[in-house]
Amino acid sequence: MSTSVDKKSLEDRHLSPPLSPVRTRNAAATRTAILEAARRRFAHEGYDQTGLRDIASDAGVDAALISRYFGGKEELFEEVLTCGPNIAEFLDGDRDSFGERVAQMLAVEPMREEKFELFLIMLRSASSPKAAEAIRRHSHDAFYQPLETWLGGDDAAVRARLLSCVMMGATMNRVIHEDYLLDGQQRQELCEALARTLDNYVSGPV
Amino acid sequence: MSTSVDKKSLEDRHLSPPLSPVRTRNAAATRTAILEAARRRFAHEGYDQTGLRDIASDAGVDAALISRYFGGKEELFEEVLTCGPNIAEFLDGDRDSFGERVAQMLAVEPMREEKFELFLIMLRSASSPKAAEAIRRHSHDAFYQPLETWLGGDDAAVRARLLSCVMMGATMNRVIHEDYLLDGQQRQELCEALARTLDNYVSGPV
Repeated sequence: MSTSVDKKSLEDRHLSPPLSPVRTRNAAATRTAILEAARRRFAHEGYDQTGLRDIASDAGVDAALISRYFGGKEELFEEVLTCGPNIAEFLDGDRDSFGERVAQMLAVEPMREEKFELFLIMLRSASSPKAAEAIRRHSHDAFYQPLETWLGGDDAAVRARLLSCVMMGATMNRVIHEDYLLDGQQRQELCEALARTLDNYVSGPV
Repeated sequence: MSTSVDKKSLEDRHLSPPLSPVRTRNAAATRTAILEAARRRFAHEGYDQTGLRDIASDAGVDAALISRYFGGKEELFEEVLTCGPNIAEFLDGDRDSFGERVAQMLAVEPMREEKFELFLIMLRSASSPKAAEAIRRHSHDAFYQPLETWLGGDDAAVRARLLSCVMMGATMNRVIHEDYLLDGQQRQELCEALARTLDNYVSGPV
C-alpha cells in the first residue's frame, strides 16, 4: 500500500516537463488506470450518477489528479468515448468487400468487450444533456463524418445512419444471444444476408 | 408512513383466498411496485448485482413478500422480461404493410421507456449465466417463436434474426441520437429505407 501512496504523491508533486522516463511511464499507467475506471463507472452508472471521486477511488489516485490530467468530468467522458472503437477499422480495406468484412466482424469474429461497453456508456448516459451532447459530437467526429466522406453522394447521411442501425443491432444481438441460438449454417446465412444489406447501404439503391 | 406499514403487515398476514376487493387491489398495487422496482434495478445493476433486499427496499415491502409473490430472483427476473414489450404489437396488422408500420414505430413514433429499459436489462444481465438463460428463453417465447411462425418457410429463423438486428439497431440509434442528427426529409428517407429492408427480410430474398 505504501508504494501506491508514494507513487501518487510523486505524481502530485512533479508534473512540469521535462519528465524522466520513469515519470512518463508512471503518468501513462495512471492515465490508463483512470480511463479504465472511468469507462467502467460510466458504463455502469451513467454520466450523471458517476462522480470523479468514485473514479479516483477505483483507480487508486487522488481526484485532483483526474482534473489535472483530463480537466473536468465532461472532458474525461469525451476521452473515454474517443479511446473506444471507431469506424476506421471497418473502412480500412476494399470497398467491394465492405459488407463481407464488416458482417464477419459483427457476426463471427470474437467480440471485444470495449465495443459492448461503449454501447452501455452511450445508452446509460444518453438521458443526460451534457453527456448526450458529448456522445453526439463524438459519434459525428469518429463515426458519421468519416463514414459519410467514405460513402460520398447526396444521401450519404442516410446511408451512414442505416449502416449504423445494422451494425449496432447485430452487435447487440451478439451480446445478448452470443451463439445466436442458430446452428452453424444458419449463422453463415445470417452473416451473408447482413453483408448484402450492408453493401446495399453502401452502394445500392437504399 | 404508518399507512404503508399497516398495508405491508396486512399483506404479510393475509394471503389465503378468498381475497376482499380491497385486498386484491392492494396486492395488485404491491405486485406492480415490486415489478417496477425490479425493472429499474435489473436495468441499472444487472442481474448478478441486484439483491431481492434492494428491490424490496425500493418498493417499500418486505423481501419475504417478493419471494411469496414471485418465487426467487430468477422468477422475478423472468416476470420483468415478460411484462416488457413483445413482438405481438408489430405482427398485429397487414403483412404487406409490416415494414412501413414497424419503421414508423422505430423511427418516428414517440419511444416508450420500457422498450429502452428492456434493452438495458438484457445487455447488463447477459453476462450472468442464469439471467442469460432466462433472456434467451424469453426472447425465444416472446419474440423469435411468434415471429418465425408468422414468417413461415425454411429460413424463418434467419429472417427473424435479421429483423431483430434492424429493430434493435434502429431503437438504439433512436435512444442515443434521439433526433437522428438528421433533418425532416432525411429522417423520412431513413424510415422508408428501413421499411424496405424490413419487408425484404419478411418476404424478399434475404
